[in-house]
Amino acid sequence: MDVKKNIAVSNTNRTKSIGYKNFPMVPRVVFGKGSFDQLGDILLPKRRNAEAPVIFLIDEVFERGDLIARVPLMFNDKIIFVSAEEEPKTQQVDALVDLIREEYSELPSGIVGIGGGTLLDLSKAVALMLTNKGSAHQYQGWDLIEKPGVYHVGIPTISGTGAEVSRTAVLLGPNRKLGINSDFTPFDQVILDPDLTKGVPKDQWFYTGMDCFIHCVESLNGTYLNAFSQSYGEKAFDLCKEVFLGDLTEEESRDKLMMASWHGGMSIAYSQVGVAHALSYGLSYVLGVKHGIGNCLVFRHLEEYYPAGVEMFNSMMNKHRISLPTGLCKSLSETEMDTMISVSLSMKPLWENALGKDWNSKVGPEHLRRIFQQI
Amino acid sequence: MDVKKNIAVSNTNRTKSIGYKNFPMVPRVVFGKGSFDQLGDILLPKRRNAEAPVIFLIDEVFERGDLIARVPLMFNDKIIFVSAEEEPKTQQVDALVDLIREEYSELPSGIVGIGGGTLLDLSKAVALMLTNKGSAHQYQGWDLIEKPGVYHVGIPTISGTGAEVSRTAVLLGPNRKLGINSDFTPFDQVILDPDLTKGVPKDQWFYTGMDCFIHCVESLNGTYLNAFSQSYGEKAFDLCKEVFLGDLTEEESRDKLMMASWHGGMSIAYSQVGVAHALSYGLSYVLGVKHGIGNCLVFRHLEEYYPAGVEMFNSMMNKHRISLPTGLCKSLSETEMDTMISVSLSMKPLWENALGKDWNSKVGPEHLRRIFQQI
Repeated sequence: MDVKKNIAVSNTNRTKSIGYKNFPMVPRVVFGKGSFDQLGDILLPKRRNAEAPVIFLIDEVFERGDLIARVPLMFNDKIIFVSAEEEPKTQQVDALVDLIREEYSELPSGIVGIGGGTLLDLSKAVALMLTNKGSAHQYQGWDLIEKPGVYHVGIPTISGTGAEVSRTAVLLGPNRKLGINSDFTPFDQVILDPDLTKGVPKDQWFYTGMDCFIHCVESLNGTYLNAFSQSYGEKAFDLCKEVFLGDLTEEESRDKLMMASWHGGMSIAYSQVGVAHALSYGLSYVLGVKHGIGNCLVFRHLEEYYPAGVEMFNSMMNKHRISLPTGLCKSLSETEMDTMISVSLSMKPLWENALGKDWNSKVGPEHLRRIFQQI
Repeated sequence: MDVKKNIAVSNTNRTKSIGYKNFPMVPRVVFGKGSFDQLGDILLPKRRNAEAPVIFLIDEVFERGDLIARVPLMFNDKIIFVSAEEEPKTQQVDALVDLIREEYSELPSGIVGIGGGTLLDLSKAVALMLTNKGSAHQYQGWDLIEKPGVYHVGIPTISGTGAEVSRTAVLLGPNRKLGINSDFTPFDQVILDPDLTKGVPKDQWFYTGMDCFIHCVESLNGTYLNAFSQSYGEKAFDLCKEVFLGDLTEEESRDKLMMASWHGGMSIAYSQVGVAHALSYGLSYVLGVKHGIGNCLVFRHLEEYYPAGVEMFNSMMNKHRISLPTGLCKSLSETEMDTMISVSLSMKPLWENALGKDWNSKVGPEHLRRIFQQI
């Protein structure tokens, strides 16, 4: 999940001037095996005319699969395949927007993102940047977007990131990794079809599921929490336990992990991530480690902060025979290590959520160095 | 909860022609103690001009309370106090719409409902009927509303009905008790301020909370359930257990029951109520018993259908020293009893959800008569 500050924040969830966040929810959702096939009917009333296409941004792993034949293309619609090998970038958003603008005289009728967190975040950002001037990196931050984006639909094909329900689109910009957080960011429509997650490789399934699990541990143990976020976070946590430690059929497991991701994403409304995400951002920034695995690499060394969560995480690792790479930080230069530490420490809301207002009396560079050296 | 059929239904949650329901969620929600005071800021951008008022429909129990001074009146806004002593009626909706049309030349900028399920359902219906022709009773059913209503805000002051999040407005019409179920029905904005539930009398608190609890038991034990509704239903169920059997502070209890109601309402997306609601509707129709207490009166006699749920319900009754009236059906005429039975048996989706497709081989008039005679 993103380094976000989705609450008008103090540690009581309240400030006098702004009050509590007025949280935007995805206004339409379909859930069910095979619900992907309803996409055509859903898009039809949104098509302005034959010249205003629907643009489908699809993870390139589906390029040679059966899914493509089921994409409801009409008129001059276009599929753009996108690699999710790397974290999504502001430049990539700008390039996609340019490409669409060059090819079409009309604004698209809709943007449909099909894939994991990377594709979903890219799709949200492209929809916004088609109607807002300039480059995507100018909007990294909170509530900088001024105009509603193009109608956008999110269809997750892997579960755990919560990107399908969040009000952010996390992007690597020229200077930082930060989300475009705004009330216009959430999808207008989400289709939750658990069957789409069938082909996910086991490692990726695990790491992305752990994004949800770790986020729940961090927010449930944080100081920002209120009953709204707690109820969603607890449900996501319970579902993760069932999926990764229980005895479910594959179908139940797909269904429940999709719902865990959904509730986990909702729980961010009035909560925040913590130590794991702060460190994972440093790791990601310096080594380009992807978000899901980055969280796992960090989390197992955080017993001091999340003892019960780390114990459960280790059981999940064992049960699914996941082995994480080691020695990643061994050959870092002194400068790289310093950058990693300072990027992590710069995530103030995360530290404050985890350790309270006086967090910087409780953690410092040497402490983080010792943790990173174990990774 | 309503006799509703919010799913494009078969017992697998799927029909070939329509697919799964594309569920409309409340697009904006604020949660927090004292968040009621954000109402003014929330309404401001929705005010079209000084002639287009905001109409506040408020439960008359607040008429002499502190809350009224906090209602953000501007221009020619109007407060209308409404009694929630009786179940809301289609005639009442028509009368409110006439009153607003007579007094104002402009369509209101917004309708704000403040109260329990009765006030929330009335407010949803009034907002819809201001833009749709004819009488409210013409729209009792599914997807009969053609135009979006006036912008409408829901602010619950008692927890359990789920009316704050549902896509229905349950009304007593000239011929039947049935909801206006449509994609335009849900509120555009909900404010969840647990402090507003502070003054609720204990009995009412219990009965309304049980509306949520009983609904969860029915939907979790039904045949229509899928993972989406199950996850919301389980969370609502767990929260009810904490509230009614746990050891919470009053503040925690208010917070958690408000979230239980919210999740319970969401769980209806792809589920359905069951035997208790079917019988309770019959009771309500003939005796005018209010919905919350009606469910309780019925539910304790349903061990054969919901053994674990009824046992837990009895523990909750004992813990809170609730005593229900008895002998209600003792002096019913034969005709009244027959009506009660036939109204209950007419709730086909509820029976199908509870007992499966061959439900009418499993239950009949004599069976229901024996249950009603105990009430």
